[in-house]
Order: sequence, then structure tokens, then C-alpha cells
Amino acid sequence: MNENIVLTGSDMTIDQFVDIVRKNKKIEVSDEKWEELKQARQLVFDLADQGVPIYGFTVGVGWNKDKRVFSKYFAEYNRNLIYAHCVASGEPMAQEHVRAAMLARLATFLVGKTGVQPELIDYYKEFLNRGIHPVVPWDGSVGQADIATMSHIGLAIIGEGDVFYKGKRMPAEEALKLENMEPLELGPKDGLAIVSTNGQAAGLGCMLLADIKKLITKANILYALSLEGLDGNVTPLNEKVNLVKNLKGQIKCSNDIRKHLENSYLNKKEITKKLQDPLSYRDVVAVHGAVLDSVDYVQGMMENHLNTTEDNPCILLDERKIISCANFEATNWALGFEMLGLALGHVSRMCAHRTIKLANPEFTGLSRFLSPNEGEVQAYQTIQKHFTALDSENRHLANPSTLDFYAVAGDIEDHANNTVQIMKRLTKMMDNIYNMMGVEMLHAAQAVDLREEITLGNDSKKLYDALRKQVRFLDKDRPLTFDIEKAKAVFMSDEWL
Amino acid sequence: MNENIVLTGSDMTIDQFVDIVRKNKKIEVSDEKWEELKQARQLVFDLADQGVPIYGFTVGVGWNKDKRVFSKYFAEYNRNLIYAHCVASGEPMAQEHVRAAMLARLATFLVGKTGVQPELIDYYKEFLNRGIHPVVPWDGSVGQADIATMSHIGLAIIGEGDVFYKGKRMPAEEALKLENMEPLELGPKDGLAIVSTNGQAAGLGCMLLADIKKLITKANILYALSLEGLDGNVTPLNEKVNLVKNLKGQIKCSNDIRKHLENSYLNKKEITKKLQDPLSYRDVVAVHGAVLDSVDYVQGMMENHLNTTEDNPCILLDERKIISCANFEATNWALGFEMLGLALGHVSRMCAHRTIKLANPEFTGLSRFLSPNEGEVQAYQTIQKHFTALDSENRHLANPSTLDFYAVAGDIEDHANNTVQIMKRLTKMMDNIYNMMGVEMLHAAQAVDLREEITLGNDSKKLYDALRKQVRFLDKDRPLTFDIEKAKAVFMSDEWL
Amino acid sequence: MNENIVLTGSDMTIDQFVDIVRKNKKIEVSDEKWEELKQARQLVFDLADQGVPIYGFTVGVGWNKDKRVFSKYFAEYNRNLIYAHCVASGEPMAQEHVRAAMLARLATFLVGKTGVQPELIDYYKEFLNRGIHPVVPWDGSVGQADIATMSHIGLAIIGEGDVFYKGKRMPAEEALKLENMEPLELGPKDGLAIVSTNGQAAGLGCMLLADIKKLITKANILYALSLEGLDGNVTPLNEKVNLVKNLKGQIKCSNDIRKHLENSYLNKKEITKKLQDPLSYRDVVAVHGAVLDSVDYVQGMMENHLNTTEDNPCILLDERKIISCANFEATNWALGFEMLGLALGHVSRMCAHRTIKLANPEFTGLSRFLSPNEGEVQAYQTIQKHFTALDSENRHLANPSTLDFYAVAGDIEDHANNTVQIMKRLTKMMDNIYNMMGVEMLHAAQAVDLREEITLGNDSKKLYDALRKQVRFLDKDRPLTFDIEKAKAVFMSDEWL
Amino acid sequence: MNENIVLTGSDMTIDQFVDIVRKNKKIEVSDEKWEELKQARQLVFDLADQGVPIYGFTVGVGWNKDKRVFSKYFAEYNRNLIYAHCVASGEPMAQEHVRAAMLARLATFLVGKTGVQPELIDYYKEFLNRGIHPVVPWDGSVGQADIATMSHIGLAIIGEGDVFYKGKRMPAEEALKLENMEPLELGPKDGLAIVSTNGQAAGLGCMLLADIKKLITKANILYALSLEGLDGNVTPLNEKVNLVKNLKGQIKCSNDIRKHLENSYLNKKEITKKLQDPLSYRDVVAVHGAVLDSVDYVQGMMENHLNTTEDNPCILLDERKIISCANFEATNWALGFEMLGLALGHVSRMCAHRTIKLANPEFTGLSRFLSPNEGEVQAYQTIQKHFTALDSENRHLANPSTLDFYAVAGDIEDHANNTVQIMKRLTKMMDNIYNMMGVEMLHAAQAVDLREEITLGNDSKKLYDALRKQVRFLDKDRPLTFDIEKAKAVFMSDEWL
Repeated sequence: MNENIVLTGSDMTIDQFVDIVRKNKKIEVSDEKWEELKQARQLVFDLADQGVPIYGFTVGVGWNKDKRVFSKYFAEYNRNLIYAHCVASGEPMAQEHVRAAMLARLATFLVGKTGVQPELIDYYKEFLNRGIHPVVPWDGSVGQADIATMSHIGLAIIGEGDVFYKGKRMPAEEALKLENMEPLELGPKDGLAIVSTNGQAAGLGCMLLADIKKLITKANILYALSLEGLDGNVTPLNEKVNLVKNLKGQIKCSNDIRKHLENSYLNKKEITKKLQDPLSYRDVVAVHGAVLDSVDYVQGMMENHLNTTEDNPCILLDERKIISCANFEATNWALGFEMLGLALGHVSRMCAHRTIKLANPEFTGLSRFLSPNEGEVQAYQTIQKHFTALDSENRHLANPSTLDFYAVAGDIEDHANNTVQIMKRLTKMMDNIYNMMGVEMLHAAQAVDLREEITLGNDSKKLYDALRKQVRFLDKDRPLTFDIEKAKAVFMSDEWL
Repeated sequence: MNENIVLTGSDMTIDQFVDIVRKNKKIEVSDEKWEELKQARQLVFDLADQGVPIYGFTVGVGWNKDKRVFSKYFAEYNRNLIYAHCVASGEPMAQEHVRAAMLARLATFLVGKTGVQPELIDYYKEFLNRGIHPVVPWDGSVGQADIATMSHIGLAIIGEGDVFYKGKRMPAEEALKLENMEPLELGPKDGLAIVSTNGQAAGLGCMLLADIKKLITKANILYALSLEGLDGNVTPLNEKVNLVKNLKGQIKCSNDIRKHLENSYLNKKEITKKLQDPLSYRDVVAVHGAVLDSVDYVQGMMENHLNTTEDNPCILLDERKIISCANFEATNWALGFEMLGLALGHVSRMCAHRTIKLANPEFTGLSRFLSPNEGEVQAYQTIQKHFTALDSENRHLANPSTLDFYAVAGDIEDHANNTVQIMKRLTKMMDNIYNMMGVEMLHAAQAVDLREEITLGNDSKKLYDALRKQVRFLDKDRPLTFDIEKAKAVFMSDEWL
Repeated sequence: MNENIVLTGSDMTIDQFVDIVRKNKKIEVSDEKWEELKQARQLVFDLADQGVPIYGFTVGVGWNKDKRVFSKYFAEYNRNLIYAHCVASGEPMAQEHVRAAMLARLATFLVGKTGVQPELIDYYKEFLNRGIHPVVPWDGSVGQADIATMSHIGLAIIGEGDVFYKGKRMPAEEALKLENMEPLELGPKDGLAIVSTNGQAAGLGCMLLADIKKLITKANILYALSLEGLDGNVTPLNEKVNLVKNLKGQIKCSNDIRKHLENSYLNKKEITKKLQDPLSYRDVVAVHGAVLDSVDYVQGMMENHLNTTEDNPCILLDERKIISCANFEATNWALGFEMLGLALGHVSRMCAHRTIKLANPEFTGLSRFLSPNEGEVQAYQTIQKHFTALDSENRHLANPSTLDFYAVAGDIEDHANNTVQIMKRLTKMMDNIYNMMGVEMLHAAQAVDLREEITLGNDSKKLYDALRKQVRFLDKDRPLTFDIEKAKAVFMSDEWL
Repeated sequence: MNENIVLTGSDMTIDQFVDIVRKNKKIEVSDEKWEELKQARQLVFDLADQGVPIYGFTVGVGWNKDKRVFSKYFAEYNRNLIYAHCVASGEPMAQEHVRAAMLARLATFLVGKTGVQPELIDYYKEFLNRGIHPVVPWDGSVGQADIATMSHIGLAIIGEGDVFYKGKRMPAEEALKLENMEPLELGPKDGLAIVSTNGQAAGLGCMLLADIKKLITKANILYALSLEGLDGNVTPLNEKVNLVKNLKGQIKCSNDIRKHLENSYLNKKEITKKLQDPLSYRDVVAVHGAVLDSVDYVQGMMENHLNTTEDNPCILLDERKIISCANFEATNWALGFEMLGLALGHVSRMCAHRTIKLANPEFTGLSRFLSPNEGEVQAYQTIQKHFTALDSENRHLANPSTLDFYAVAGDIEDHANNTVQIMKRLTKMMDNIYNMMGVEMLHAAQAVDLREEITLGNDSKKLYDALRKQVRFLDKDRPLTFDIEKAKAVFMSDEWL
């Protein structure tokens, strides 16, 4: 058991991707693939020998594509190329994010259209397997290949710069020594191949997809609890009425939430007088469903990305050609993630509105701000500033960035996608939403406690219990800042799932 | 021939939708469907008789859902409901747009989950067939059902308000008389059904999908011409190198453009020295392809919309139930169209950058600003302000609006999608892009004329010829405002396609 | 009486500006100024004779600044320059806007730093005095001098293109003939001077300043009426409590509103139980005051603009020099108007929230949605969609555009301000706010009518009466679309002021 | 010397503010002021005794304003009020920022309209003087008083929560003990007064104003160096040509830059052939000047804020009244800071464009990307991705947030300004600009080194020398990530100023 994952260059899934990044699953490469990578490498040399000009190999990159590179300078040129592309700033990315970036590049290397020395690919694999995580600053990419940041992985491979290793930051050289590895000597095209990849953004994006899906899974359970807090209407969860709408995500959400609410007192009520709850409740199946459908679309794009080429020029082994192309363009998924940012924006707004309703006697029939004693305890009043402030920040973060770029490199690079910034924004949005849902959970549990003896659904009960282990009923005012922190931690944890 | 289109409520396509709206194809409804609509109607009455409270039928709508409606007031209540929902302002929508709105509602009526009197549905069909187009102001919907605007269609149906008919604006009453139709007397639930639909946004959206697809078709031909103007590199169009990327849209674009360039001098060139053109040229297959893939995703959403229910409550005929639900939510396609806005933003930016390059000797080897005589003719210099200004406006229009809404109706309606505003923005973006592409075309044709005798591709030649019929070579400065107008008209016309 | 306004080039105010544009006040130029303009003209020739290279005179403009212009081609070069700068598209600007654009340019001509032939300046004056209004399309400027649009004024001056004249669109040549004017022959530097001006944006901006100030004047009266509708609290209008805050705009607003409410029943109430009204009421003095303070800041910028130079190069008559400079930069007021866009955004949001409150029994003590009969009349329910939709559009229009521009003209023009687009957005926002305030007025008047006999304030009474002349009490549901249109017209009219 | 600063409640300046925050200048309060504060306190008790309902004193706050507070519960009620308002999350603010927040609140306390116990005010003073800095999380305020965050200062004052003290984080109780201070017992109105302040945003804003002014001071020196690197034109700096434009900021910038360039080789050149440099150079005086003018406007607002009241209700000592008001509204400066965000956006874009030009032989006459050896050293090529990525992030950060808020607290608090989020965005923009200007400096110094022996201006020389002490000439490629970090540190340091 705990067997290695064998990578083939053609069938990586997001789930597998996350397992390797987060669970540190060990990986290896199939022998067939290894053979193919060697042949691709040989082809590049053959073509160069025939005098075909090859971008980043026999001629320079960017505006310098009119400059010739001579073979005696290959090693130096490629080391310099790495140096010249280490142009970043800002906080180091989390190790998890660096792993994702390396894996995203490893995946496209394995497609076999790059033509680098196979040893280079092996270093990516080994860095992942051995937990050597180069220090990669966040900022520097315009999202048209993350050349200014992914270069820092190359820097570590040649034994320079810093890495995180076994919990410490140290010179790359030292970590390599501890693992009995030598710095790699780069050959022709290796430098370009290291930097010319959307690995940073793609890696972050793959993690986000998994995280958004899990968020919706949890948000559906939380919604079940909130609906119980509100004493709301379950008819919008009806199986048939959702089936006829024929939207995959909506059908899944309604099925899941009905399951979460099994045994809930909500199912046993007389026909409710409140024919229609506020939309932030009634429409959850549709909105969360729309998020899942969007994720589905983008996941298709990303799995295609991981299993096809992003290289320019592109090696066509069968045809023994190397061709200039646009296969590094990320517009398709840049657009997809911008859409997901707006999708998260809707999740955020719905959450804020649901939470406001839980504090309003008109909708709950409970006390104002869920106070256990309206005259004396202010309870969940001011907290409305807190979570609506976070939602407003989310509104700001949902503004697009994909259209803002310059024409650089002598006006030649006049298109970009800002994919890294998109991922940065969405990562922050997720954090805000965890926070907000923690607060919704505080409200929902308080509302449940304020009701007469009620029976919770099977799954909403688990969430309620998990929260109550950390945060007790609000019987008198206390600094909620600490409750918020704990609630967020509970919501982010997977233990209660 | 020119047979009627028989609508079934389950298989409407975007192409069919556009045919009915633009080509005034006559429509009819299948007999089976008619029967089903009658049964659905009967069910509503049966349930009401059993005392089931029905939203918009036996009880009020919105915050007034706690008010009871008595049967003797059905006609009056429903007329009043139409009145009370006519709350819009702004320019009247174009007749084409009104047709689209009516058809979008007709389509979801035909799904059979509404329970209105079948005669009402017939009026939508007849208005389309006879060209009776109610005056519907643009502004009033928050895109959570277009209740404040779609009501104006109901107003015409009861013989009030104005319509456009045979080229004139006149009172609805008058147009009905000319067509020997009576104003319809509304029954219970009819009022709600008329207004409670996303028809305005959905209709506009369906038209946009068709228009964006056609835009890309044309933009690919224009790109072929521009590439000839630039004397650019065709390798990024290579079949195999695009196939390996495995993106449907990109494969289609590269195939199409190669076809457009058949017989072009570009195919006959020696291996170019310019190994890599600017990205605004090199990446067109990827960016236009990404647009097509996005359209594809949204088209799936819209065709599902047209062929499933958007009604709340929803009639389930088999189960003899009427159920409160969220099936009117448009978040899934609201997100999709926001994505398309950003997609159009990329199309716009690429066009602007391509056009700038055509005026730059460094990229074309031609004169500065494509002047026929640099010392005396200023040619395409200042025009860069024009088309970059339009692109800047597009950048602004691409800002999202889906997240900006209020909690209204006593805080119950606390979610919305702003779909109509999204469509308004995209419609304006399209117009700007037509303008910009007209200008790109002026540049491309001028560049082509400035080259030594060259042979154009089969399709780019057609575009070139179509332009040159309207706008002649710029031999000396003349007010380009008029050339721009003509070029836009040529580009928008389908004659040369 | 009705004497001409004598322009001096140094003391134009916004009020004067608006009088000339809207009231068609006749203008003349002082003799001293005329003499100075001749001297400036002579200086340019003297310097050119000395071989000093002069931008747009002896050398080309933009990227062509390295090209020499020979004197025998002056006339042709300058006509061509006009032609080459006519590169615009879109709807023709309103005649009022064209007048504003011409006057804005005339104002900076009169500063005397341009060095054009004085006859040219006379044509601007005469066009204004005689009502000859060139057709100027909206779109084409990036707001770094409106060269692509202001050129159309030059086109008319040389007798080409179209103009509006006495209510008709006609060829410029024809209008000139009817006025016994000859087309002007352009001399050196004239072409550049005609186009190189921020006249379009500055003219629109000056009108906006006047309009925003008037909007606040009216909005304060409307607020008085709404406060009466709400039965709200007047303490926030207290003189002393506003004085201590020491903000000019807030002090003015509180003083004005107190005056508007003279004799109102609100002043005679017992100490209210509602200690604090919603902020959309309580904070009006502060928010409207902030708008006025912002306008004040921008007005200072614009009056400075009208009375100093915007020309490059700049003539320094005293020093007998002509100097390249940055005096055409509009960043200072571009920023100011972007701020005003956000200020209008707050006005819009406050209006929406006030209107929502007027329909809510909890705040008014009146019926739901101000219905005269809750069971039967739905009244102002759905209208909440209408005005919140307009506010959402305003939220979108408040997004900035000043930072979105390209590097054009061979990368030399790598800064811009997008001033025209800013003005376009604000102009549309104003229109939406007129609409929204019309709707607020409908609510306020209805609320007033629903109260027991109350006495209105002196000024709020005038507004109430003006509305009630056009729109009667809503006793039963009727299509509100028509009421909205009338209410907007009333609010925009100045008769009741 | 190093005398205490005596605060009077009416004459605090931004400079003084920064001195107290950053230089830890000790403060005291004048005796007269102390007396007045006591009288204000007494007035509140007198009025309460007369039965006047006082918000936050005898009645509750927010939606609970209809609840009565009884005097025996004053201490408990006010402690609970602090608890109930501690509802924040996110990173702790920097100690400097917490000092600024405390000082901003202290300043408005000293105006004397609050009516709290004077001892409370003393704690703010002592916390500043003794360096006791409560832990205040960043997020929680919607910028309509920062009640959810400023509460944490109150928490420390009553001896709860954590503080930073002498470099360590510790319980507030412990720090108080170390300073021989007792936790304060809160009296009536104290709780409300602690939280009901815009102190967090105002404090951050005051610091930003000082920082932006210093940024422009430095940016002008950097511009001088860049102009020397470009071999640019000094005519736009001409004294007279800037004077005639009559803009205070522009005049100052041109005067300063001329001074920075004293002795520079640029002043000794023959009349340049390049008549007009790119606008990113030519227009710096105007754009930086516009920033200063904007800062000036906002500084007036903020100094007014610090020296007038922000309290509601407001004590009017002379009139012996306490009045409900809108004096807490921050719309005036919220708008101002949004404008400053766009102003910084222009600074950022100009910097990016200037830096691109320095790498372009067409503008410098130097090598491509300032390479010391074009064939072998890639130099400043990829770095264009880095700084344009930062500028794109700035473009995103410049999007406004002031209009995005909810109606909370039972719909009563239906206006807000999001001031804290505005400050957060601008603080991040500043950091990005420091980074970008560090990179511009790297370019400028490299360009200077590549020129034949040239003499630098007096001040640009100092900047050049400061950089060269940390970063040597780029003779071959090296990882620029480290150079960027050092250059940023140099630029942020004040030593070379």
C-alpha cells in the first residue's frame, strides 16, 4: 500500500494532483515515457545540426530572438538565462504552492513536447518526492508563462538560491548535499524550458479547483444547519423540481442537502406558512450548483492543460519537427478562473445575506441578533460589520485582472492573461469566505440552541457538534474575535466531514 | 418551402432561435404540446380548489406573499399585477430585441411547467408571427426575473401601452384591431407568468451568442488579411501543433484560418527570419479559440434554459404538484456571460495591438503609419487614439455587474444577477469591436496595397475586395471618420462571408 | 441689457461658461487681448525665421516630429493635418456639448500662448454667436488632448463636413454661406492648435460641474420632502452641530435644508421616539456636503484650466520663446472627475436606500409599499427593482477609466487620462440619478398624502405641488412607467426651483 | 529639547501626527483642555439626570436604540459593549498603524464633544507615551466608524486581550502591571466612545498622506536620474512655462527637479534633436504635481478631521445640549483617498513606461535592455514582466471600494464608506510602487554607467551613489531578484535624501 503514483503524461486528474501536493504521495515515471523523452531530446539536437533555428536553443528569447547562441556557450547561456529570469519580489509562496507549481510543470514536461534533457525532468520529480521546495517569490509573472518566478526552481536545481527543506530555509546547495544530489548542469533549451511554463498559475489553479469543490461540499452542510436555524422551507430541495431544471450542479446540491437534512425536524413540519424564504436560502441549490458547473468547466480545461503541451516551440516527434506555436496561451482557463471569482462572489454574498437573516426576528421568530436576553446581551449585532466588510473585500477581489497588461519585450509580447494575479485574488477570497462561513455557523448554532428542542439533520448535526466542541453558546457578551477565529478553524478542518 | 417551425418545448437551438427572431420564420406549436398545456392549466385550478396556497394565484407576490387573493378578483388582480410591474425607463429596446424577449418567454412557456391559460401562450406566438412588437423600455430589471420590463409585453396583450407594428409606433389596441385580435382577459397566475421570466436577458443573451460566434468567424478572416499585411508567420497555424493542444476552439480556428489563407503568398515564403511574430498575431488561434470554447459552454446553458423551466412555483404534472423552487435563478449563465465579456475584452485588445503593429515599420517593413508618402501624408497615425479609446471603453464595459444588487421586497429578494445589464454591456462591446475591426481592416488593406504584388488567400481576398468597393486606398490624407464608418458597415455586413 | 460678455482670457467662471453655452449669451473679445494675440502670432513667425524647430509648425507632430514641414506646404499641411485627425465614430454629440467644446477651446486660445492666426480664434467666437455647431462624433479621444474629435470643428471651419445650424444638419459649406462667411484658409500651426486641446472633455466637464451643483440643490429639497414622508428627525440639521464639523459643503446643505423645511410639521413635533433615523436620512447633510466640497475642488481646477494655457509648445511672449512642455496634461482634473463619479455613486445609493425606507412600514408607520389599500393595490413594490437596477448601473459607471490607455504613436504617447470617457460615464450617471430621484419623489409625495393632514416645508411644498400637477396620487395600480417618466421630467425642470 | 508635544484639540498637523507615531514623540494635554473635558463629562450626567435619552448612555446602540440602559448596569453594560464590538479577524495591524489609530482617536477626543470620563482619554495618551500597543486585527470595519476593530483598544484598556509591548506580544494585563497601571473601569458612554470612531482608517490615512508626499519627493529625484539615463530633454522643466500653468503641485515639482539636476550634463547639451520625449518623461511635472495637489486637498480634510468632532451624539457645551448628528461620516475623505488611489495608479504607470523606455535603444541610443554585451548578457529583459505585473496589480488595487456596503443593523445603518479597505489598498499600492521605483532606479543607474563620462545632477548623484553602494553595475547576468530587493530598500530608506 501507499504505492507510488506512476505518471504517464496523459491521464493526470485534479484529485491525483492534490494527493501528490498535499499528501506527499510519491511519484514515478513510466519506462515508456522515459524512452519517449529521450527521443524528443535527440530530435532537438538532430534538427539543430541541420541548421534549423530553434528558439531558446540556437537563437535567443524574447526581443533577442534575432541573436544567435553558439553551442560552446550552451551551459553558460542556459545558466545565464535562469539568472536573467529570476526577477521576482514579494513573500515566498507557501511550500504547498511551490509543490503545486513544480508538479504542474512536471506534468507538461511528461507530455513530451519540450525536448529538454530527461535528467532535468527527474529533478522535478525528485524535488517533489524528497520535499525540496525552492523559495519562489509570489510576484513577477504577467501570466503569459510565469517566467520570472518559475526560474527560481531552476535556480535551486543548479544549486543556487534558497529552498525550504525539512522545515527549514537553507541554501539549495546544502539541501542537495543532504540528499546526496549534485547541482544539475543545464544543456541547450533547458533554461527556456524551466521558465517557459504557466506552472505557478496552473499549480495554484488546480489547488483552487479542489478547494472550491470542497468549499461547496461544506457550504451545503452549513446551509442545512442555517436552514434549521431559520426554521426554513425545504420544498426548494424537492428532488423532482430540481431534476426538471436539468443542471448537473443544482441536481447534485439538492440531492446532497436533502441527505444532510435526513432526520431533521424541518422535514416533519406542517406545510409552512412562510411560502417563500428569502432568496439567500431558497436559491442555494441553484447558486451553489452554478458554482459546481463552473468548476466543472474549468476543471476540464485544467486537466487538459496538465495532459497536453504548453511549450513553444513544440516538438512533434512523429513528424520530426519543431514548430513555433501559441500553445502556452492560458486565455481559456484565465477566463474560467475569472468566472470562478465571480462565482465565489455570489457564494460570499449569499452567505452574508443568510447570516443577516438569522439575526432578524422577522425571519426567525427568535430574538434580535440572537441574543439570549435582549435587554442585556447585545450578541450578534456588530458582527454584521465584520462579515459584510469581508464580503465587500470579496466584491473588490472579484474585479477582473486578466485584461490589464503591457506590450513588453520590444512590443513583441503584447498579450498576457495575468493568471497568477487571478489565482492570488481567488486564494484570498477563499480565505475570506472561510471566515464568513465560520460566522454564519456561529449564528446558525446559536439559533438552533435558541429553539425549542429540535432534531437536526444527520450531517448538520455533525457540523453543529464540531463547532460546539470549540465554541460554546453565547450566553453573555464576550469578545467574538476569538469565537470567529475558532469557528473559521472548525469550518476549515475536515474532521467533521 | 419556408415551412413553419414547429415548437415542441424541448429542442430549441440557438440557430433556430436566431432564425425566428431575425428572419421572421413563422412558428407553430405541436398538438401534443397544446394538450399538455391545457392539462397543466387544469391542474392549477384543481390544486387551488383543494386549498393549496399558490404563489401569484391564491396569494400575492413578493413581500405580499402573505396576502390572500380571492377568485372573484382574479381578472382585476392580474391586470393590476401587470400594471404594478410596468416600472421601467430608458430607450425602447430594438424590435429585434423585443422579438428575442418574447421568443425566450414563449420557449419556457412551452416547457409546460407554468400553468397559465394556453391562450396567453398563443398571443406570444401570434405577436411573433404577425410582427406585433410591444414597446419595452431597456431599464428596470435586476436580472432576477425581468419582471419590471417583461410586464410591458403583457400590457400590449391586454390592449394597452404601445407597440411597433409594420414600421410604426402605435397604441397596442390599434395594432390588435388591425390584426383582428381581441385584447386578452387574464386569468389567475397569468399576470405572474407574464412578468416572472428572464426573457429579456435570455433573449438578448441568445442573440449575443450567435453574434459572438459570427464575430469570431469574421475576425479569423480579418486576421488572415492582417497577417498578409504584416507579412507574418503561418507556422502557428500548423495543423498538428494545434491538434496536440486538444482545445476544440483552437483547433477550429487554426483549421479555418489555414483555409482562409489558401493560395496566399504567405504559404510560399522561404523560412521566415522573423521566428516569432508579436503575440497579438501568433496567439490568435488560441485566444479566438478560447472565446469559442467559452461560447460553447454558455450556449449549453442557454439551450438548457430555453428547453427547461424558469417558473416558480413549478407545475409537476405527473406528480400533480405545484412546488416553490429556485428554477428562475440565472446565476449559471450570468457567470457565463460575464466570462464572455472578458473574452470579448481579449478579442478587443488583440485587435488593437495587431493594428498598432501594422502601422509600425519595425514589424511590417513598410512605411510609418502605412503612409504612401511619409513626408507628406500622415495616414494612420492619429487613428491609434480612436481605436485604443474604444478598447479602453471595452475594458470598462468588461467590469462585472453581476454582484451588485440590493435586498429588496422587504429583504426577501436578497439575491440577483443583473443579467440585463450584463447583456447591455456586451451588446455595446460588440459594437465597439465591429468599429475597431473595421479600422484594423483599413490598415490591413492599406498594408497589402503597399506591398509588391502579392497573392491573397481565398477568403482574405474576399474581405479585401469587399472593403475596397467602399473605401479606396489612402493616397493622401482625408477625413478618416467617414472611412471608419464605411469599414464598420462592410465588416458588419454578411455579404462577403 | 442682454449685453455681450467680453472675454479677457483670464477670468472666465463656470457660471459664465454655462450662460454662454446654454443661454446663448453673445460674446466678444477685448481689444487688448486681440492685440496680444497678434503679437503672439508674429513671434511664432519670427522664431521660425530664426530656424528654431517648432512642433506642428516647421516639424511634424507625434512620431513624425522628426519630419520637416516646408513653408510652401503650410496651407496644405494644415488642411491635411485636420483631415488626418478626423478619426472618430459614434453618435454626434448634442449641440449643447459641441458649444461647450468650442467655448472651452476658445477660452484657452484667449490665454494667448498658442500663436495661431487670430482669425481662427474669431471663427470659434462666431460659431458660438451664430449657432453654427459642427457635427462632432463622441468617440475617438483618449483624453490626452481630444485630437481625434476636436478636429471636426476645424473641418467645419475650412468648410467641410457637416454642422447643425438652425435646427438642421447640413454641409458646413452651406451654413457658412447662409451666414456670409468664407471657409478659413489655415496657416502654419493652426491645424495643430485646432486639434491639440482638451476642449471636448473640458467642455463636458464644465457643464457637469454646474449640473452636479444644481442636482445637489434639488436633491436637498427632495430630501426635505422625503423626510416629511418618513416623519423623520430634524436634529441632524441643527445649525450648531453642523458648524462644529467645519465642512463648508455640510454647513451649506444643513442651512439650506433647514430653510426648505421652514413651516414644516417636522419642526413642531415632540421629541421623537425614533432617536436615530436610518443613515440614508441622517447623513444627507454630510454626504451631499461632501459632494459639494468635491465639486468645489474640481471647479477650482477647471476654472484654472479655462484661464491658463493647455498648449504645447507654449508661447512665452515676454521672453520671446516657444517651449515644449506638459501643459496639456489633464491628470489633475481627470482625478477630480473620477472622484466626482464616486461622489455621485454615494448620492445614488443614498437615494435608493431612502426610497426603500419610504415603502417600509417599520420606518414610516404607513402601509406596505405605500399602498392606499394593502389587500388590493400593490403600489410601489416592483419599482424597487427599477431604481436599484439604475443604482447598480451607476455602481458600474463609477468604475474608473483614467488608468486604461495604450502607448501609441510609436510608443511616444505613453500617458493619457481618458477624460472624455470619464465625462461620458458621469453624464450617464446624472441621467440615472434624475430618474431615481423622480422615483423617490413619487414615494415621498405618496407618503405625504397617506399621512393625516400635515404641513409641508416652504420649499418641499413647491416640489410636491410641481409633481402633483403631473402625477396624481396612486389610488389604484397603474403602469408606473409613465409616472416615472413624468416624475423625471418634473425633477429635471427648473420651474419649481 | 525633545520637549513634549502639547495637544490642544485644535491644531494638530499631519507632520506632528507622523512625529508622534513614528518618532515616538511624547505628548501631553493642556490644562485648559483638561478642564473642558471634565465639563463636557459633567454635562452628560446632568442631561441624563434630566431624562434626556442619550444614545449609548441611557439607551442602546444600533438597532437596540429602543432599549433602555439602567445606571446600575453602566459598568457592566460598557464592558459588554466593548466585548460585543470585538468582532474582527485577520493579521494584527503593525504597531505603527495601531499607534496611528490611537492617536487619531485621541485627537478627536480632545476636541471635547464626546463626554467620556477624562481618565479614558488619559489612557490613550499613556498607551502612546509608554508604547503599549493593543493587538488590533485588520478586518472588521465597513468604514462607518471602525467599531469592530477600535474596540480592541478598549479591550486592552480594561486589561483584557493582548498588546505588543517592548517588542513582545503579551496579555494586556501583564503590560499594564509592568507599567504600574490599573485596568480602567468604564463609565457610561465610554464604551460607545471607544468604538465609535473612524480612528483606524483616519490613522492609516494620515500616515499615507505623509508617505505619498515623501514618495513624490523621492520620485522626483529618481526621475532626474532616469532623465539622465535617457539623455532626455529638460525644457519641460522650464520655470516660466510651468508658472503660467498656475498649478501649485506642478510648479513645485518643476522647481524641485530643476534643483535636483543642478550641474547635470543635461543642462549643458546643445538644443536636442529629440524635440519631444515620451510623455512618461515629459509629463512628470504635471502628473506628480497633480498627485501633490490631490494630497493637498485630502490633507485639508484630514487635518479638519483631527481637529473637529467625529462623535455622535455630539456634546455642545456652550448650549448645554447633546445632539444626534452625522458628524461621524467620512464620505469627504473616503472620496479623497479613492482619488489618491487613482493618482498613485498614474504614478505607477508612468514609472513602468519610463522604465520600459530605458531598455529601448530607440529612446536611449544605448544597448537593448541596457545589456553591457548584447550577444551574451540578457540584462533587463525579463524584468519587464516583473514591474508590469506589479503595475497591473496596482491597476486592480485602484478599483474603488467605497460604494460597496450593506444595509445592516436592522437596515438602519444603510450607508458606509469602506475607508479601512481603501487604506489597505493604498498601503499595498505604495509597497508595489517602492518596488517598481527600485527597479526603475536599477535601470537608470545602468544607463548612466553605459554612457560616456557624464556629470550627474547634485541630487540624482546622491541617489545613484546610494544605490551603487548596495548594487553594482550589471556586467553579466545574475539573479535580479536580489538586486530588486536591495534597490527597494535603498529607495525606501531616507538616508540619501
